[in-house]
Amino acid sequence: MMQVLRTVAELRRWSRTLRAAGGNIIGLVPTMGALHEGHASLIRAARAGCAQVAVSLFVNPTQFGPNEDFARYPRSFEADGALAEAAGADVLFAPTVEELYPNGAESTFVDVPILSDRLDGASRPGHFRGVATVVTKLFLAAEPDRAYFGQKDAAQVAVLRRMTADLRLATEIVVCPIVRDADGLALSSRNAYLTPAERTQALVLSRAVRHVESLVAGGERRAPILLASAHGVFAAVPEVRVDYIALLDWATLDPVEIAASGTLFAVAAWAGSTRLIDNAILP
Amino acid sequence: MMQVLRTVAELRRWSRTLRAAGGNIIGLVPTMGALHEGHASLIRAARAGCAQVAVSLFVNPTQFGPNEDFARYPRSFEADGALAEAAGADVLFAPTVEELYPNGAESTFVDVPILSDRLDGASRPGHFRGVATVVTKLFLAAEPDRAYFGQKDAAQVAVLRRMTADLRLATEIVVCPIVRDADGLALSSRNAYLTPAERTQALVLSRAVRHVESLVAGGERRAPILLASAHGVFAAVPEVRVDYIALLDWATLDPVEIAASGTLFAVAAWAGSTRLIDNAILP
Repeated sequence: MMQVLRTVAELRRWSRTLRAAGGNIIGLVPTMGALHEGHASLIRAARAGCAQVAVSLFVNPTQFGPNEDFARYPRSFEADGALAEAAGADVLFAPTVEELYPNGAESTFVDVPILSDRLDGASRPGHFRGVATVVTKLFLAAEPDRAYFGQKDAAQVAVLRRMTADLRLATEIVVCPIVRDADGLALSSRNAYLTPAERTQALVLSRAVRHVESLVAGGERRAPILLASAHGVFAAVPEVRVDYIALLDWATLDPVEIAASGTLFAVAAWAGSTRLIDNAILP
Repeated sequence: MMQVLRTVAELRRWSRTLRAAGGNIIGLVPTMGALHEGHASLIRAARAGCAQVAVSLFVNPTQFGPNEDFARYPRSFEADGALAEAAGADVLFAPTVEELYPNGAESTFVDVPILSDRLDGASRPGHFRGVATVVTKLFLAAEPDRAYFGQKDAAQVAVLRRMTADLRLATEIVVCPIVRDADGLALSSRNAYLTPAERTQALVLSRAVRHVESLVAGGERRAPILLASAHGVFAAVPEVRVDYIALLDWATLDPVEIAASGTLFAVAAWAGSTRLIDNAILP
């Protein structure tokens, strides 16, 4: 039976009691709710790798810009709880905004400035600062041995890996593969915003990713060629507006000239007013 | 016999082993070394209040400005170890810069922007961001129940109390009284920089603090009167250059018009090239 906890003190007591009992690997899956099969895959991975699993469910205001979708971000507490429990969560941590931001949203920040203005951070100023801040708070509350994130948010993974290393946190970041719908669209809570027409247009993101993967499989490694090719794929769907198409070192988020093993190919684009992302880690 | 630990992993293992054993209150006294009787009073307070006490000894590069005294800051490892052990430390944590900043000094930061440009932060840009960053790392490494700081660094205390509350850390900040030499000078590792003449001139700081305390004891509560009076005390020693003289709410660092119980009276001034601070919390 999954427990629902609302305060940091309760979550920390849960974690410390488990740790004191000895040998318990504690897993954390941070989410903003609106859970889908991508989240379920993270929870199942945590379930497989840890003795006890907490899923946090918190729509974090500090990672949304003033003109973004914080207010309308999908919230579905009952369905989320059912999905988390079915996927194997022992604890659902669902704090209020006041619980995580007792002095308001503009008080203490955690930031990785050398990474946080890249990729999504370039078009969403303050986004990664908000992510780093809330994930630090969640890590300090749950004190997990492992925390599970989706590769879909590849720049977020880079920021959190760096932050975790810099703060010398005892938490291992585990990255799980992108989960896709049958037609290739990467799962995202924001897919719910798409009209049927936008939903079809949005397939251009995964098409561009697959196209670049196939070029690389065929031996093409030159970034200018790969990027131009991806732009060509997007050009066929002018309704979708490109934000970025990039080949980067996944750790530093610096652009590369030659795609190597582990290079991140990442795209972001707007379908209507919905911003979507997709990526691949090249073999 | 005091243990010397050099890595975050060792310190965390020490702390988690104690916590798992149950009922152990763990104390941390963060210092930059060059220990004096003020630090000893913190360590003794920790000794009295905790089952086990760690003293950290780390000259933190990120809290020094580019033209400040990082390179010449006094370092005295052997004497510091002896003082810490005599005062009751169980563990001396003395990491390298690389251990606490594995990706260099400019990677991940913790900051409290609404407080960190006040008082000492105004004349030392980046100082409190460096303090908040290193103290977060030390708290994450030692996971202490209580951490001990001197009231002498009153603005630092305000920043760290806010940061600890915002990050929902499980650490209680304990503030210990200012320790003074017989003539009234507040103890500071930087007093070692003073020439004999500067040492005498520097007494104007504690004189101004005592003067304001005596005016308040006599019933004067109006900030403009108290501040003008303190400026008058400094005017008698023109060799000492005032940085700030302020009456503030200790939590928000906002100036007050009327001194109340708990109001912070704080001064900073240069004696020669040495910047000194002093303060009182008004009754």
